[in-house]
This record gives sequence, C-alpha cells and structure tokens, in this order.
Amino acid sequence: MSTALSQPRLISLAAGFTDQVTLPVEETRAIMEELLGSAKSGSVTLQYGTTLGDPILRELTASRLQLLDGNTALSSIATAERMIITNGSQQLLYMVTEALCDPGDIVLVEDPSYFVYLGILQSHGVRTKGVRMQPDGLDLAHLEELLTTLQREKQLHRLKLLYLVSYYQNPTGLTTSFEKKIGALKLLRRFERAAGHTLYLLEDAAYRELRFRGEDVKSALAIPYASERVIYTGTYSKPFATGARVGFGLLPKTVFTPVLRIKGNHDFGSSNLLQQLLARALGSDLYERHLAVLRNRYAQKAKVTRKALQQHFPPSVRWREPEGGLYFWPRLPHPLTSGTRSRFFHEALRKEVLFVPGELCYADDRARRKPNNEMRLSFGAASEGNLRAGIERLGQVLQKLLR
Amino acid sequence: MSTALSQPRLISLAAGFTDQVTLPVEETRAIMEELLGSAKSGSVTLQYGTTLGDPILRELTASRLQLLDGNTALSSIATAERMIITNGSQQLLYMVTEALCDPGDIVLVEDPSYFVYLGILQSHGVRTKGVRMQPDGLDLAHLEELLTTLQREKQLHRLKLLYLVSYYQNPTGLTTSFEKKIGALKLLRRFERAAGHTLYLLEDAAYRELRFRGEDVKSALAIPYASERVIYTGTYSKPFATGARVGFGLLPKTVFTPVLRIKGNHDFGSSNLLQQLLARALGSDLYERHLAVLRNRYAQKAKVTRKALQQHFPPSVRWREPEGGLYFWPRLPHPLTSGTRSRFFHEALRKEVLFVPGELCYADDRARRKPNNEMRLSFGAASEGNLRAGIERLGQVLQKLLR
Repeated sequence: MSTALSQPRLISLAAGFTDQVTLPVEETRAIMEELLGSAKSGSVTLQYGTTLGDPILRELTASRLQLLDGNTALSSIATAERMIITNGSQQLLYMVTEALCDPGDIVLVEDPSYFVYLGILQSHGVRTKGVRMQPDGLDLAHLEELLTTLQREKQLHRLKLLYLVSYYQNPTGLTTSFEKKIGALKLLRRFERAAGHTLYLLEDAAYRELRFRGEDVKSALAIPYASERVIYTGTYSKPFATGARVGFGLLPKTVFTPVLRIKGNHDFGSSNLLQQLLARALGSDLYERHLAVLRNRYAQKAKVTRKALQQHFPPSVRWREPEGGLYFWPRLPHPLTSGTRSRFFHEALRKEVLFVPGELCYADDRARRKPNNEMRLSFGAASEGNLRAGIERLGQVLQKLLR
Repeated sequence: MSTALSQPRLISLAAGFTDQVTLPVEETRAIMEELLGSAKSGSVTLQYGTTLGDPILRELTASRLQLLDGNTALSSIATAERMIITNGSQQLLYMVTEALCDPGDIVLVEDPSYFVYLGILQSHGVRTKGVRMQPDGLDLAHLEELLTTLQREKQLHRLKLLYLVSYYQNPTGLTTSFEKKIGALKLLRRFERAAGHTLYLLEDAAYRELRFRGEDVKSALAIPYASERVIYTGTYSKPFATGARVGFGLLPKTVFTPVLRIKGNHDFGSSNLLQQLLARALGSDLYERHLAVLRNRYAQKAKVTRKALQQHFPPSVRWREPEGGLYFWPRLPHPLTSGTRSRFFHEALRKEVLFVPGELCYADDRARRKPNNEMRLSFGAASEGNLRAGIERLGQVLQKLLR
C-alpha cells in the first residue's frame, strides 16, 4: 500500500482527510491576527496552559453540546467541569483505554468499527467482540446475547466498555438512533451488578458536526442515568481544521481523575495556541460560518459520489447514502472480495485508485468470520473530478470481474 | 498546594514556565501572516500532516543538531530519517517508556531527576534506581556499582535504560560533561551482554538551547557507537514558545518503529499548524533572533536570582549558579528541611512564596533515604521584582528558623 501511495497520479479514496478547499484559512488568519496583535493576548496564547485545557474553550464546548442535545444548562451533564481538552478525540480514546483497560480485558465494538481504535485496543492487549450493526445502529438483541454469553462464561468482570462511533460512523456512514443508545445503556446497566463494576458507554461523536442532511440525533449524554456511565468525545479537527488537533472528552468522575493524570504524563496539556484559536472561532461566528460552508461542500461531494456510484457501479453492489461524515460503504456481491490480496484491490491499484478494504475495519473476533466484501470510500479529500474518475475506474474493474 | 496556587498575590518560584515577556508574539504573528496569507500554503498548514512529522521541520532540526554537535552531515546520526516530531519532548519520553518498559522493569535516573518523568515511570510500574550526581553529571563509579549490583542480583535483564537530563538539569541546574556521557555509554555497553539486550541512554536535552553562559556541550549523539544506543529528545517549547508544543526525538531503528506505531495510536501526528510555525521560524532568522533575546533575558534573571540569594540567604545555604536553563537548587543546612510538611515550606507559604520541595525530585529508591533539605527555585516565569521579593522573604524565614 505504501508503494501505491507514492504513485503521483493515485486517486486516494482511502484517507479520512477533510476537504482541502474548505479549510478555514482566512478565518484562522483573522483570529491569529487578533490573538497575536497585542503583546498581552499574544503572550497568553504562547504560554503553557493547564493540563485540563482552556476554561473558555471548555465552557463554549459545553454550551454547544447543551444546545445540540436540547438540554437546559441546569440539567445537562455537558459541563466544563467534566471536560478535558485533548489532541484530537484520538488522544481521548487512547487515554480512556489506558485508564480503564488491562491486558486481557474485553471491549465491545461495532462490527465493523474505527480501525485505528481497534489498533489501540490490540496494542493494549484488549480483546474485542463485535456487535452486529443495523441501519439505525447496534443490533440490541445481539448485544444482549453477547452480554449474556460473557456472563455465562464468567468473563463479564473483564468487560470494561462498549465503543460506539455514533454519528455517520467510520467506516459505514451509519448513525445510531437515540433509542438505540438508550437501549444499549440500559443493557450495560442491567449487567453491571454481574460485572462488579460500571460498564461504560464510550460515545465517539467525531463526525457529529459534519451533518449535511436530516436532523441531529441526541447524544447518550441526554439519557437520564448517563452521568456516571457515558464517556463522550468530540473533536474540532474535522469540522474546523485537521491541522489544528483539538478534541475534547466529557468524563464521569470515576474516569476523569485517572485520565487527567495520564494527560499530565502524556504532555501536561494541549497546545494553548491551538486552544485559543478554537476558543476564538467558537466565541465569534467564524466557527458556525465555516461549518455551514463545510456542510454544503460535503453535501455536494456526497451527491457527486452517489451519482457516480449509480452510474458506474453494477446494481448488485449495495450501498446507502450517508447523511453526514465522509464515507460510503459499498458491499460487493458474492463471490467478489475487496481485501488487500483480492483481484479487485489489485486491479483498482493498477488503475491508480485506492480504497480501504472493509476487512481492515473488523475486530479480531473468532465468533465470526471477518466479512471481506466491503470497502470504505471517502469523499473527504478527493476533488469532485477525482471522485468521479476514481469511482468510474472502480466500476470498470467491478464490471469486468463480474462478467 | 492547590490552596496556595489560588492565592492571587502568591509569588511562584515553583513552575517551570518560561518568561512571559519574551514570548515570540511578533515573530509568530509574522509567520502566521505568511503561512495563512495564501490559500495554497494556508490549506497545507491546516490539513493533517503525517504521523512522523513535517519533513522540512525534521530536516531543519537535524541540521541544527549537526551544527551544535560539530558533526559533518556525513558522519552524524542526527538525521531526518531517524527523527519523529512530538507534542513536546514530554510525549517522546512517554512513548519511549511505553515502547521499552514493562511493569517491573528498571530505569536508572539521576538522583535527583525530572519529577514528571519519575511519575511516568511510576505509572508504568517501572522501578527506579538513582545515580548520584557530581557537579559535571553522573557519578560514574556509582553507576558502575549499581550495574554490578544489578548483575549480581540477576536483575540486569530488567534494566532498560539510563535517563539523563543532560543540560542545566531539572531540578539541579547541573550539566553533564561530554566525558561523562562517554563514560556512561561505555558502562552501559559493557553490561549489555549480561543484560541480554541493548541498554539505552535516553538523553533529554530539553534545556540545551537555554544556555546563557559557557559553551555548549556535545550530545551523546556524537559518541561513535551511539547510533544504536542513544535516544535523544529535544523541544522547541522552551526555547521558542511553550504555547506551541513541538518537540522531537532521534531514535535508534529498534525503537523508531514501535514509537512511531504508538504515536499513530496517540494522535497520528502532531498539529501541522504548529509544525509549520516552527519550520518557518527555523528556516528564517526568527528563531535565532528570538533565542538571542531569550538568552539575554535569562542571563539577567539568573543574575537577579544570584544577587538576591547572596543578599538574603544565610551563607550556610549552599547553591551553584547555573549556566543555562531555569533553575537554582539551594541546599539547606542541617537540621532545616524543605518538604511539604516542613516548617520552612509552611512559613514560606504564609509569606506567599512557593517553591518545589527537593524531595519531590527523588525517585523511590529504598537504597537511600530521600534528601529533604533542597529546593528548586525557578527564575523562568517570575518577574525580576518577584524574584527579588520572593527570595528576600524566603531568606527571612530561613534566618528566623536558623536563629
């Protein structure tokens, strides 16, 4: 794959990068001018912050979440006090795993799930079990079955959390309904006594703000008994600028202190310069304005992708149109496969198109065979022309292989 | 201590913050203007970089190190290929520990050492042994004794590395001579066969550029057989801006790949915006110019500190004047102590002056009692007026306690 990436004319539909054209260059320039225009605000910006993160950024982020979830400030658990600023949501995922999981522990993940997180779990020696997906998120019956089996096999005490990429999921583009979140948290709660400890729901909302159709769905933070059970993480990388890696986590008290200690050891606090940038963007209308531009742009690119798929892919290849995020997830008909050793993958590479083979997004779970007939197509970074050309070429390969 | 920090008039000589007045506000403004002035360079700046870090920043950093160590590019092991960009040198320390150390392993540290790193080691379940310090760095006879003892006790296979803060050490201000680095690496090499694996020298050069007197000392990278044994880390946080957290590590091949994988899991690469900022500063004369300002300023503040110590501290309190960095390390005469429960610490707090008790900088090592009669005084963040006032008050307490 590294050979492929060095091809200068390669069309990559693999990377989860965001759209180059819509990066907030002018907005960032204006904010930097403001921040660095005076010695006073400038020297605050360039000094260390705290391990926890900038208080104004935490306040603004909390208010934003309260608005999204339709909570009043009074009842919401989305508060600055429970929040820590991180280097992207990625760092939060890493730290939570470090804080909660020992080697041999178990984490439940969507099947498929975000492959970098699967790698983090693997590197910590954590076992994973995949929960089947439906169009509106987890198959709750399967989740219950898994929990019951773990209990029967006396493994429930090793279970630490359930990981959900709840909005426009990486890789499938699916969104978990609020009802499914309630259902999942209820199940976790029911098995807590048998587990002997809290079973956390780790909600990764990295793509939440990249919605270009439909309505926002409430987060698990809005569930009544969420405060001690839900770990929520979001990011400003994707909705603002991937070059500024600012994310955040909202944590129950039991997880907050250990994660803060780990953050202190990792880097004693994220760059203050980046945090001030985001705080100014959120505190003015620059963030909202940029987000509107971004959503229009991704809506357009999703449309281009959909049309190209309709035009060039055989009808036996199944896919859904996402309502946000960066990904389509086509499924090939039997007997076609999409893995790195498949004919399809190699013929696509020969035509200079790269995608993420679906099998890479499945946890190691001996309870089922890894499906190997799906692919993740990202419309984030590629230009409209490259989206059309890339999908056309993939379509040609598929037509040929199906003949 | 958190109560103390909330006192608005507290003079903190504790924090390792850098001088607020000398932060490069105007330099950063100019670079941002340049980076974000065009859509082309702006969108590169605001997009993801790579996990490894910006190639130009790595090149410039390597050249700079080659210059400092007086090596020709041909012979130097300070090359971009061996380098990874991190969130401050702190993240490199963390990742190296994750990569090399298992719970129960042993790391040799200077006695005293950088207390945050001691915390990292502790959080990974790593045992520490302190090597006594002399004015020019490690006591090599003691190092040899420790290695011999570990061998005799069949513990050498658990030893992974020796950690040195080699320039203007945190907390003592001492600098390790090049001869001592050679001696230490020779000893490690001699015991490698008995250990069964490489014994790494982890050189933390965080303060190297903050020299305001004397000559630079060559790093361990300049030792002939360093390439497979020396892990070197530096940072631009302190010499440029603590608000931009950019550091780097130079790694032997055996450590490079695991650390790169961990970096991918932590955050898949440091903020590109911050890296572009540093690359532009280094690529122009802005970094050098700023460094000259900084050195003058710290020279001046060190002088103010020295004079205040001469004037106000009893002559029985011993200290050395550092040639760089941010710290003085006074030692109190018997029977005075400086710990958080000591009368001195509390009377100082009552007079609204905070310092770091020396005992916090000593590893847990049952082979010796932790000295509890030293203190770390930082002249980084406090104003000249506060340095004078703070030291005067500390002197008053000491005079009183010695009466």
